[in-house]
Amino acid sequence: PDDEAAERARARDAELTKPAGALGRLEELAVWVAAWQAAHPPRAARPLACVFAGNHGIAARGVSAYPASVTEQMVANFVEGGAAVNQLCRNVGAGLSVYEMGLETPTADFTTAPALTDTEVLRAIAFGMRAVEPGIDILCLGEMGIGNTTAAAAMAAALFGGTGTDWAGPGTGVDADGLATKAAVIDQALAFHGAALADPLEVLRRLGGHELAAIAGAVMAARMLRVPVLLDGFACTAAAAVLWKVDPAALDHCKVAHMSREPGHRRLVGAIGQRPLLDLDMALGEASGAVLASGLVQAAVSAHNGMATFAEAGVSTREA
Amino acid sequence: PDDEAAERARARDAELTKPAGALGRLEELAVWVAAWQAAHPPRAARPLACVFAGNHGIAARGVSAYPASVTEQMVANFVEGGAAVNQLCRNVGAGLSVYEMGLETPTADFTTAPALTDTEVLRAIAFGMRAVEPGIDILCLGEMGIGNTTAAAAMAAALFGGTGTDWAGPGTGVDADGLATKAAVIDQALAFHGAALADPLEVLRRLGGHELAAIAGAVMAARMLRVPVLLDGFACTAAAAVLWKVDPAALDHCKVAHMSREPGHRRLVGAIGQRPLLDLDMALGEASGAVLASGLVQAAVSAHNGMATFAEAGVSTREA
Repeated sequence: PDDEAAERARARDAELTKPAGALGRLEELAVWVAAWQAAHPPRAARPLACVFAGNHGIAARGVSAYPASVTEQMVANFVEGGAAVNQLCRNVGAGLSVYEMGLETPTADFTTAPALTDTEVLRAIAFGMRAVEPGIDILCLGEMGIGNTTAAAAMAAALFGGTGTDWAGPGTGVDADGLATKAAVIDQALAFHGAALADPLEVLRRLGGHELAAIAGAVMAARMLRVPVLLDGFACTAAAAVLWKVDPAALDHCKVAHMSREPGHRRLVGAIGQRPLLDLDMALGEASGAVLASGLVQAAVSAHNGMATFAEAGVSTREA
Repeated sequence: PDDEAAERARARDAELTKPAGALGRLEELAVWVAAWQAAHPPRAARPLACVFAGNHGIAARGVSAYPASVTEQMVANFVEGGAAVNQLCRNVGAGLSVYEMGLETPTADFTTAPALTDTEVLRAIAFGMRAVEPGIDILCLGEMGIGNTTAAAAMAAALFGGTGTDWAGPGTGVDADGLATKAAVIDQALAFHGAALADPLEVLRRLGGHELAAIAGAVMAARMLRVPVLLDGFACTAAAAVLWKVDPAALDHCKVAHMSREPGHRRLVGAIGQRPLLDLDMALGEASGAVLASGLVQAAVSAHNGMATFAEAGVSTREA
C-alpha cells in the first residue's frame, strides 16, 4: 500500500463534517482504496467484475444439485445479460467480463489424480493475471463452475486442516446424501494427495480448478497494478486463500465482500482474518456478492471525496 | 401487505436462473417491496430520504460532544450538499428532503417536564405524515438533533425496560463523564415521568422530540401510502419502536437499515425483532445508513425484475 495516499485519506477524513469514526467501515474503505490505488482522492466510479468459469471432474461424482452442463449454460446467460450478476453490475455501473476456461476440458477427478497438470495450473494463473488491466478502479472477482464448492472445501481443508465434514456445505442445494458424498470425496482427496498438500500452490493445482487458479492469478496481478479487489464467496475466497497461506500479507489489497450462506465460508474468512462487508445469506457465486459490495465502496469513496470539511461548512467542532 | 403481489414476486423468484435462496436477503427484499407497494414488479429506482431536524433541551446538560448549535449548522450543510447523506443520496440516485423543525424552540429538559406538549407532539407527527407523498419507491428516514441519542435511549428504556446505563452510549463521542451524565439524566427522567410512560405515545411526547415524533408520523403515513420504509440507526429506530410497542405489526413495512455502532441499537433491534441489513459500525444518523441500504434494495429489485428465467435462458433446472 502507499502510506502517503493512506495518510492523505486519513487526514481528510478527520476534517469531514461528521464525528470521528461515524461512517464506520466506510472510512476504512476509503483509506484502503486510496492506499492500494496509491492515489488520493480514491476512485470507485467504475468497478469491473471478472467472472471465470471452469468445469470440474468431481461433478460426475454427484456433488452438485445441478448437472455440469449448467456451467456452460450460465456462461451463455452472462453473455446474454440474464444472470443476477448482470443486473447487479448495471445497478452500480460496473463492467462485466466473463471468461470461459475450456469448459469442454474439465479438471481431473481429484480423488484419483491432480485436478490440473503443472502446465494447466500455470496457464490458468497467467490467464487470470491478464484479465486485470491498469486503470480499473475496483476489481470484483467471481466464478462459475458446477462442482467448485467441493473443490473449494477440499482446498480449505488442505490449507487450514479439518475434514470433509468440517468444510462441505450445501453449495447449490444438495440433499443430505449429496452432502455426505461431498464430505467423502474431500476426505478421499486429502488421503490420496497426502503430504503434497503441504505446498499451497500444490493445493491449488491438485484440488482446485481452472477458474480458481485464474482468480489467484487475478488477485496477484491486481496488486501489482494497484487495483483493490473485492472477493466474492466461498469458492473465490478459497482460491485467494492459497496466496494468504504463502504470505498472510498477500491479501491486504483484498476485502471479502460478503459472508456466504455456505457454512465453510465463515470458518474460511476467520482463518484468513477477514471480516466480510455484507452478510445477506447469499450463496450464488458469479461475483454477485463482490459486485453488491462494490456499491458500498462507491458510497465510501463518494462520501470521502464529496463531503464538506468543518471549516468549509462552518460547522462547529467538538466542544473543548 | 398485498398477498397477491407478494405471491407473484415469490413465483417469479422461483423461476429465475439461480438456485433457490441463493440471493439470500435480496430475495426477501424484493418480495417485501412488492408486498408493501402492492404491486409487481416492485420499484426502487428512486428512493427518497427525509431527514428531520430538531433540538433538545437535554443538550444543555452536557450529554453531547458537540454544542446544540451544530443541529442548525448541519441542516445548512445538508442544504448546501456537503454532508455525508448528500453524497450517499447521489450515489444511489435518491432524492433528499430536509425538514427543520423549529430549531429555535428546543424540547423541554425531560428530567423536569415533558419534552413536548400535547399540541407539539401532534403537530410534529402530522408534519412527518405530510412529508410522505404517494409514488415514492422507498422512503429512507433519518434525523439530526444534538442530544437525541439521549432522548432515544430514554425512550428505549421506557418502552423495553432497563436503566440509563443499559441504553446510553457514546453518541457523537462523549467521554466517560458525558456517558455517566447521559445515564444519570435518563434515570432521572424515568423516575420523574413514572407511570405515565406506560403509554407508548406518552413516551414519544415526554422523552422524544420534534424530529422523533415526525419520524413516527412518516412511518405511519408511508404504510397508508404503500411506501416501504428503511429506518436508520438508534434514534430513528427508537422513534419507530413507539409504534411497535402499540402494535408489533406496525413496523412490518419497515426494515432497520443498519446495525449502529451505538450499543443500545443492538438491544433495540432485538426488542423489535428486526435483523438490520448492514452492519458497518456506522453511527452518524442523518439517514446515512438508510440511504446506503437503499442501494441493496435497488440491487434486489434489479435482480428480481431483470434476471432471465430458467426457461428463457435455456438453463437446466435441478437434477430430478
